[in-house]
Amino acid sequence: MTGKLIGVGTGPGDPELLTLKAVRAIENADVIAYFAKQGNASNARAIVADLITTQIEEPLGYPVTTEIDRRHDDYKSATAGFYAEAAARVAAHLDAGRTVAVLSEGDPLFYGSYMHIHVRLSALYPTEVVAGITAMSGCWSQAGLPLVQGDDILAVLPGTLDEVDLARRLDNTDGAVIMKVGRNMAKIRRAIEAAGRLDMAVYVERGTMANGAWMRLADKPDDIAPYFAIILLPGWSTRPRAEALA
Amino acid sequence: MTGKLIGVGTGPGDPELLTLKAVRAIENADVIAYFAKQGNASNARAIVADLITTQIEEPLGYPVTTEIDRRHDDYKSATAGFYAEAAARVAAHLDAGRTVAVLSEGDPLFYGSYMHIHVRLSALYPTEVVAGITAMSGCWSQAGLPLVQGDDILAVLPGTLDEVDLARRLDNTDGAVIMKVGRNMAKIRRAIEAAGRLDMAVYVERGTMANGAWMRLADKPDDIAPYFAIILLPGWSTRPRAEALA
Repeated sequence: MTGKLIGVGTGPGDPELLTLKAVRAIENADVIAYFAKQGNASNARAIVADLITTQIEEPLGYPVTTEIDRRHDDYKSATAGFYAEAAARVAAHLDAGRTVAVLSEGDPLFYGSYMHIHVRLSALYPTEVVAGITAMSGCWSQAGLPLVQGDDILAVLPGTLDEVDLARRLDNTDGAVIMKVGRNMAKIRRAIEAAGRLDMAVYVERGTMANGAWMRLADKPDDIAPYFAIILLPGWSTRPRAEALA
Repeated sequence: MTGKLIGVGTGPGDPELLTLKAVRAIENADVIAYFAKQGNASNARAIVADLITTQIEEPLGYPVTTEIDRRHDDYKSATAGFYAEAAARVAAHLDAGRTVAVLSEGDPLFYGSYMHIHVRLSALYPTEVVAGITAMSGCWSQAGLPLVQGDDILAVLPGTLDEVDLARRLDNTDGAVIMKVGRNMAKIRRAIEAAGRLDMAVYVERGTMANGAWMRLADKPDDIAPYFAIILLPGWSTRPRAEALA
């Protein structure tokens, strides 16, 4: 009998945003695995720290993360083999009959690190995925910002897109979420201005964490932002107020 | 002292996908309010039924829902005044000093019915929003389908879009979620075929509910679907397998 693989979403940061199902999966697992940059603490582990007691811990240490562009050959060579090795370490526990909960910040199958384990092992072992609150959901909830309603179209866009493409996509959607702001901040601001939507844009840092903060992008005085900051463009509320309140 | 307004996401259906924060908010609320079609049970209330004990219940009964197209004048006249009246009923509790938890399936500010209360009352009363697991997140987790990764673009599209627009948008994104399938099913299938993406499309009905089901869209023999069915087009996994596994 092999063990069960469970991808567990830990949500955006606030431990209270764990689901009941995630809590149960973590408490009952034999092994807790999590990704982190080598030598650094894992954000996902920190969210669930109070639930870890006698489970075996299996840290999966990235050789490199955001300091190299992921499209660059150096990134690819540094990470080549890493995911296969991480999956092999998880598989060894499963082969020994241990249930392994692989933590994933946010939702496991939505830009989550767990996906690298899932594509390698889910066809080979009994697998379950426990959905989590996404970072973007944590951000618009913290800002109290209604994002999309009714027949709105939503675009989730990486801040790495080139400026013209980003502006065009912002002009062609109702709501938008721009991820991976970081060093792309000045370019993103110009694209939002080009799309004529700066007035409604909201900037959120560390959504749902104790030190989380948000402000109108137009009020942010600089273009300095952490990698995981998010910018939100509401769909619904950009429409005539009269229609929204009808 | 007025009471506090709390928009509470109940998640997609499985009561285990409630967050710890949602459970606490519901248990501690004086009043539990929820939308439902007049004369019908509320789906959101059913998810949290075990948590309702001595709280006051405030059902907010829609005069009309999906049987009339929301762009039609008959829909607008039938709903005119309804949201204002619902907000007034919630406000009366808040004025009396009662904390009101307004239930919202999925996530409150992501296509949630709670938004109609939020835009009317959040500027007037202390307000908090508790993020919830979205229906789409429940669906791709149930199907074990990695949706988007890395620099993928995601589009969330209503099935009400016209066929040419839908096909064009599907051709111009990595991942996609198509909501409100229902009577739009045949048109959506044609648009996905036109975009050359039928092979990877996944159809999900009642994600995370006890009777939930999913299948490849290409294997679905008919175009009959409930209103809340969802179609998923994965981004990441459409790329060459070699890159995904690198």
